[in-house]
Amino acid sequence: MKFTKFIFSTLNLSREYLESIFSLASKIEQNPENYLNKCNGKILAILFFEPSTRTMLSFESAMLRLGGSILGFASGKTSSSAKGETIADTLRMINGYADIAVIRHYLEGVGEIAKKYSSIPVISGGTGTQAHPTQAMLDLYTIKKAFGKIDGLKIALMGDLKYGRTIPSLLYGLAKYDDVTLYLISPKELKIRSHVRQRLNGFNLKFYEIDDISQIIDELDVLYVTRIQKERFPDQLDYERLKSSYKISPETLNNVKDSFILLHPLPRVDEITPEVDSLPCAKYFEQAKNGVFVRMALILNLLGVE
Amino acid sequence: MKFTKFIFSTLNLSREYLESIFSLASKIEQNPENYLNKCNGKILAILFFEPSTRTMLSFESAMLRLGGSILGFASGKTSSSAKGETIADTLRMINGYADIAVIRHYLEGVGEIAKKYSSIPVISGGTGTQAHPTQAMLDLYTIKKAFGKIDGLKIALMGDLKYGRTIPSLLYGLAKYDDVTLYLISPKELKIRSHVRQRLNGFNLKFYEIDDISQIIDELDVLYVTRIQKERFPDQLDYERLKSSYKISPETLNNVKDSFILLHPLPRVDEITPEVDSLPCAKYFEQAKNGVFVRMALILNLLGVE
Amino acid sequence: MKFTKFIFSTLNLSREYLESIFSLASKIEQNPENYLNKCNGKILAILFFEPSTRTMLSFESAMLRLGGSILGFASGKTSSSAKGETIADTLRMINGYADIAVIRHYLEGVGEIAKKYSSIPVISGGTGTQAHPTQAMLDLYTIKKAFGKIDGLKIALMGDLKYGRTIPSLLYGLAKYDDVTLYLISPKELKIRSHVRQRLNGFNLKFYEIDDISQIIDELDVLYVTRIQKERFPDQLDYERLKSSYKISPETLNNVKDSFILLHPLPRVDEITPEVDSLPCAKYFEQAKNGVFVRMALILNLLGVE
Repeated sequence: MKFTKFIFSTLNLSREYLESIFSLASKIEQNPENYLNKCNGKILAILFFEPSTRTMLSFESAMLRLGGSILGFASGKTSSSAKGETIADTLRMINGYADIAVIRHYLEGVGEIAKKYSSIPVISGGTGTQAHPTQAMLDLYTIKKAFGKIDGLKIALMGDLKYGRTIPSLLYGLAKYDDVTLYLISPKELKIRSHVRQRLNGFNLKFYEIDDISQIIDELDVLYVTRIQKERFPDQLDYERLKSSYKISPETLNNVKDSFILLHPLPRVDEITPEVDSLPCAKYFEQAKNGVFVRMALILNLLGVE
Repeated sequence: MKFTKFIFSTLNLSREYLESIFSLASKIEQNPENYLNKCNGKILAILFFEPSTRTMLSFESAMLRLGGSILGFASGKTSSSAKGETIADTLRMINGYADIAVIRHYLEGVGEIAKKYSSIPVISGGTGTQAHPTQAMLDLYTIKKAFGKIDGLKIALMGDLKYGRTIPSLLYGLAKYDDVTLYLISPKELKIRSHVRQRLNGFNLKFYEIDDISQIIDELDVLYVTRIQKERFPDQLDYERLKSSYKISPETLNNVKDSFILLHPLPRVDEITPEVDSLPCAKYFEQAKNGVFVRMALILNLLGVE
Repeated sequence: MKFTKFIFSTLNLSREYLESIFSLASKIEQNPENYLNKCNGKILAILFFEPSTRTMLSFESAMLRLGGSILGFASGKTSSSAKGETIADTLRMINGYADIAVIRHYLEGVGEIAKKYSSIPVISGGTGTQAHPTQAMLDLYTIKKAFGKIDGLKIALMGDLKYGRTIPSLLYGLAKYDDVTLYLISPKELKIRSHVRQRLNGFNLKFYEIDDISQIIDELDVLYVTRIQKERFPDQLDYERLKSSYKISPETLNNVKDSFILLHPLPRVDEITPEVDSLPCAKYFEQAKNGVFVRMALILNLLGVE
């Protein structure tokens, strides 16, 4: 297995590396008891300059389930950065306190700073405006688990594709696979950014930007829904007009394929109605749980623990 | 021993169940070293949508003393609920991250939601406006430890009996015992709520609502004092007039029985003067400590660990 | 080895005690794996009424690296003190939950309260306005490690010597050693307080209060830089005028001795330019790391673990 020290983007991860992480995650999922003490004596630092319950707790659960322990902060307001400390200094300080770190920060370039200044492995827990690589990895793992493969699938990403870090990371991850067909469904104000589109054009990947799911829902293998935040719409009338077309109910899913799965990075507000939760295609809570196994695999890999 | 999965009220706990928890708590208190590794590899999720230092730290101490570990959040402001997530969704997420959860939330009905959506055990750490069952259980344990029994005791509850969650839970717990005499001492504005009174009327229990402790203090076995919050009084003159009659000093306790004990759920402000702390009847700090043993017993029970 | 129960000041620590802690810290630093399970089953309570990332994480790392665990709070706003609880009560509560505590609080006299009310050991993590003994101990340990001794060294402390807790604790610690020459370099508004000066006069110690580092930099063994906070200057023009003379760059250090070391308690803002970081004399990140070993030694000592 190849070992990596920094995870800040899915762009520079090879398909082989992704597969090796998924393979390890799967082993962990099947026999978690074999991994209970793998990180005894090791400390994971949580450096969350922006709050994020889910990502933070998922990483914490991962490290604890490996027998390691946790320290850190859940908000920039209580950290030394409030006194004007640079990220580089915070990382060098934490190098003395922990064995591996996960960082969430709104600034672009956090990955470069980590690579330059950190002697311990560092993982992005959401950095800059466009990167959330571990979310993308758990999404890919969930798809792989459901279909046994990712190659050849028809996958739609729906909702706010512009803001938020999940979508670009997932798109770049999907681009590592062969013959994937992508549908990007969003109001025109919330389409992927032009630099993301340019990157996609450079990949071996078919993608279609559309604004209505009904045309393609019956062909899909995977529908990945994200929240549309009200605040994103300059015109609230636009929001009211559009939001219902981006709401998934059992009716929306009337004619989906038997193997179809519905994903969401969570937290969900009302993009998926509660009635959908009991359908067999609803995989978003399992998806959240998968995040723990994928992050366990990543921690082991970055710490060089076999 | 009977195992339970959810603890959200003392109403539906049998006397037998309470006694089995107290018996286990007592064993733990006598030989804590026997329980040091009982929860190795297990994770307790702290889901505190409202802050509460004491209850939170007591649960954390309990889980750590069993060899388990902790994750979670201490305030609703930093949790996903700030993004509009429902409690049901938060619980289903946390089911992937932890083995047991304790939740503090102001909404009524949290227990029903937990029972419906959680596959892992969940304990109330204070829910709705009228339930704090683990506080009641540690109160009962402290009384049992002091007297060897609860049956037949004369117990007064004094202070703010209307707001706060401790009093109703303790009353319903005491109602499981035989021949308990209760004195409920409060300003008229802070009496127990009518639906609590109706419930008490349905129990095999004598209770008297009075507004002055001096008449009965010498007969009491237990006096349980709670804080009166200034903000609760519409009329601040009323507050000034009443507060001194709800302040316990050594003089108040001049003629109490030898076996008398004084309890308080803490934090205390000035309802009990510091001079009382050194009296042998002052059991409130021991009471806080007992909370750890009772919560250790509950965690073991809900996780099905013998 | 002599065991102590409370650490609230460097004034009352003997040189022998300091040396025994440094000796243990050094053993830990050389063979950390020997100490991995020394505190299994023990809990450190973090009682931080004022936030402080670095000190808190350093203590947490220390306890976790000893195999112990952590609970507590990182801000007075979320603790029971917000409900009006006294420090004495908080400590007596925490006595039931943990085996050792570290407290950070702005009030003078916290140490006296701890000695009176706590049955478990308590360490200051910064108390009152003038005490931060564990910071001083890690500073002394770093100097000792670099020179093999502290006796006879020429040490300058520069920056804000009035506000902040680090300087007085470090001065009183240095005063335990023989023949130390001290230069105290600060703008006149930020000199050490008069009661600190009086104390220094009572020690066997030469000290000189100057306002310009250039006169003495080439003779120094150690330069200890602290932040000057803009807010401390009544006159912002004064701040603008003075700040550049308290900024260390590679040029400032052109002619220092070969063995010279540069320290800073961190976080640093712009008192030391980033270009200095790569010079061999820059020891501030190692200094932060040393804090973990010193605090591990202190925790072992106060818990009476050999």
